[in-house]
Amino acid sequence: MNDELSARLEFIEAIDGLKLIERRNYLVDGSRVENSAEHSWHAALMAAICAAHCDEPIDLARVVLMLLIHDVVEVQAGDTYLYDLDARSEQAEKEQAAAEQLYGMLPERQAQEFLALWNEFEARETPDARYAKAIDALLPLLQTTACDGKGWRERGITREQVLEQKVGIRDSSEALWDVARTLIDLAYERGHLK
Amino acid sequence: MNDELSARLEFIEAIDGLKLIERRNYLVDGSRVENSAEHSWHAALMAAICAAHCDEPIDLARVVLMLLIHDVVEVQAGDTYLYDLDARSEQAEKEQAAAEQLYGMLPERQAQEFLALWNEFEARETPDARYAKAIDALLPLLQTTACDGKGWRERGITREQVLEQKVGIRDSSEALWDVARTLIDLAYERGHLK
Repeated sequence: MNDELSARLEFIEAIDGLKLIERRNYLVDGSRVENSAEHSWHAALMAAICAAHCDEPIDLARVVLMLLIHDVVEVQAGDTYLYDLDARSEQAEKEQAAAEQLYGMLPERQAQEFLALWNEFEARETPDARYAKAIDALLPLLQTTACDGKGWRERGITREQVLEQKVGIRDSSEALWDVARTLIDLAYERGHLK
Repeated sequence: MNDELSARLEFIEAIDGLKLIERRNYLVDGSRVENSAEHSWHAALMAAICAAHCDEPIDLARVVLMLLIHDVVEVQAGDTYLYDLDARSEQAEKEQAAAEQLYGMLPERQAQEFLALWNEFEARETPDARYAKAIDALLPLLQTTACDGKGWRERGITREQVLEQKVGIRDSSEALWDVARTLIDLAYERGHLK
């Protein structure tokens, strides 16, 4: 077999582990928490569906690829909870090492492309990255609203914590930010957020 | 909220159910069967990673979107086993109805676009659809090889059944077909396929 193809298939096998990484938010029906692989599917598809509501010009194909790979580092570094700020600051270094190791399994040029795309996502400085991050932020908010704030209630999350973590949505889309703000206010009124 | 955005968010919430649809193949580590949402993530990303090995000119962004939506109908119609040919022939009608109902939740133009893309995938008559189908066929073969043929052994699947279901890979990529044939021969030698 071609060496490049062989390297690609090894990477594809390695990232199967993302299906075993549990996030903190629940599925819409509240039956279990979500894993990072199925979240990545949902986010990539949501980006395609909602692209008309992005306020900046974006390259949707890049955004979709960004979202397909955005959590792959968790295969090695694990997931951290959005509202656990201490854990998240330690996590950044672990994730950078994981990204270099994992994407490094791919043929050189592709490894560089994926690493650059992941770094662009993390830096959130381009329209593509801002939109990808906005989708990644809004989706679990929709899901948590649908299951009556289950994850928030279990951890006593506050309205201010959620607002602080989600306000970046506004930089990409006023319409999506309106949705986020409405859902956060509703959750507060219902007592799902403190 | 904008009606179109509201319709999109309802669709995004409805398809969360794909995470509860179990397929027959196992994860690479054999710990559990895969669900259709995480499979869709893996297939879409694999298509992006392996595009250089496709023998026909393709529009990769379309292929990726095709794979992100290819199993969404299962939210209503459920999954059928690749090697259960009777169930699959009944399934086609159920899936067509599910596609019209589910994609019909989206704004008119987007609903038409998604329905057309899904029908194109199912028909397997374009280079994009052939490549998407090739990825969809090769990926569970890689996974089942990695877990020592677990799903095949449990159901007594034969080499001929797998060859018949996977031979279409050849129409899109000689290189990927070589991989598939090699894995099928190996599984037969190891006694994982009858």
